[in-house]
Amino acid sequence: MSADPTAPTTADRVVTAGMVVIGDEILSGRTKDRNIGFVADRLTEIGVDLKEVRIVPDEEDRIVEAVRALSARWDHVFTSGGIGPTHDDITADAVADAFGVGIDVDPRAEAILRARLAGRAEVNEARLRMARIPFGASLIEVENGMPGFKIGNVHVMAGVPAVLEAMMRAVCATLPHGRPMLSETIDAMLGEGLIATPLGAIQKAHPDTVIGSYPYERDGRYATNVVVRAREPDVLAAVAAEVRAMIDDVRARQPQR
Amino acid sequence: MSADPTAPTTADRVVTAGMVVIGDEILSGRTKDRNIGFVADRLTEIGVDLKEVRIVPDEEDRIVEAVRALSARWDHVFTSGGIGPTHDDITADAVADAFGVGIDVDPRAEAILRARLAGRAEVNEARLRMARIPFGASLIEVENGMPGFKIGNVHVMAGVPAVLEAMMRAVCATLPHGRPMLSETIDAMLGEGLIATPLGAIQKAHPDTVIGSYPYERDGRYATNVVVRAREPDVLAAVAAEVRAMIDDVRARQPQR
Repeated sequence: MSADPTAPTTADRVVTAGMVVIGDEILSGRTKDRNIGFVADRLTEIGVDLKEVRIVPDEEDRIVEAVRALSARWDHVFTSGGIGPTHDDITADAVADAFGVGIDVDPRAEAILRARLAGRAEVNEARLRMARIPFGASLIEVENGMPGFKIGNVHVMAGVPAVLEAMMRAVCATLPHGRPMLSETIDAMLGEGLIATPLGAIQKAHPDTVIGSYPYERDGRYATNVVVRAREPDVLAAVAAEVRAMIDDVRARQPQR
Repeated sequence: MSADPTAPTTADRVVTAGMVVIGDEILSGRTKDRNIGFVADRLTEIGVDLKEVRIVPDEEDRIVEAVRALSARWDHVFTSGGIGPTHDDITADAVADAFGVGIDVDPRAEAILRARLAGRAEVNEARLRMARIPFGASLIEVENGMPGFKIGNVHVMAGVPAVLEAMMRAVCATLPHGRPMLSETIDAMLGEGLIATPLGAIQKAHPDTVIGSYPYERDGRYATNVVVRAREPDVLAAVAAEVRAMIDDVRARQPQR
């Protein structure tokens, strides 16, 4: 685990997040999403638990509904997609609607747009659309694209992965950190079916941990990665040791091949 | 577009679907989802519109809530994950709960399990968990894993991609097909900011199409793929031609470099 020790850390409570991915192209299969995994990784690093993701089409009502639902339920919401200059980029308007505020070309964003385009391209109506920001929002500025924005607990980011990644890094640098969820992965080198019952007993005995079991195939046989997660290093170490001892025990009882 | 001409086709109405992805490992970033894109591609092929995806953790209440919400809203629901033998595999129980039916070891599924394990491994309590199927469900049988199942309009599939893919193919072979959404991609070789206004006008004039604009970077410059989607071939061809003519016009008016 690698939480930045210089970053602000919040109190003991768990900090949660939701994500809304906006785009017909993800739902049609044309574009394969890469942003969910990136956001999930960064949030895990800073100790924020991603609790829910919704993927919705480029339809205003659906975006409003998802943003409102997740904003009410989780500490933070991250959105990706729909903030470009074309007619199908309606995220900024939908988020303004979700918060019941107006939206217009923002002088700060327009200044950034004009500086970027100076001597290279015309500031036309479509490009100015990218400077539309809901009233009361703060900007999420990046080098490689027009700014995203934050309003309430919602961080609105681009869909293009390189731009989203820059925005997510910028947001994470300022976001209060939670207590990181620590984790340890143990390769059982046995199928899930052999360890499932004793593993379930260990999980039941340690409700302050989350034990996951992930089957994978190797050389035509199923094996299992067991992942133990906990916020307390001592708890993690103790439960991981218990899982390892259990696996050794099950292996010792297997018939020799 | 490649809908199988021998498969059943439904009437003219649009057929919709939702997907629920179940798993802490996706939300923590440990596992990068590959199933959403696969399901989206297969549904597009058979003319079913994927309208919403939710990713939820391995928590019974959250799975029940998502399955109920999407089952009520869309024609079909597809789930992935959480049907293995371990304590964190709770999807079958949650789906039974969502439908208000009981669940137990299913004789059909148990017979499959016993046949697969015969002479190779013991049928223990954990492995029998994989044969738990809600009352009234039909099985989704595949060669490379234990069966998934269908109850109501919900298709419950594995999280391991190879097994999910086999199940999805099996389901699609029997599912009534919708009228496929046809699409044509036009590479504008221009930034979105130059074509956005006329493209928006074309979209507005043709509400029976869905026109998407997808920026990408090439040699350090932004370019744009325009995707026109429609269910009528004639409409698609006419609107795609209009988009092409518009792009040619914009290009002709660009300063020479």
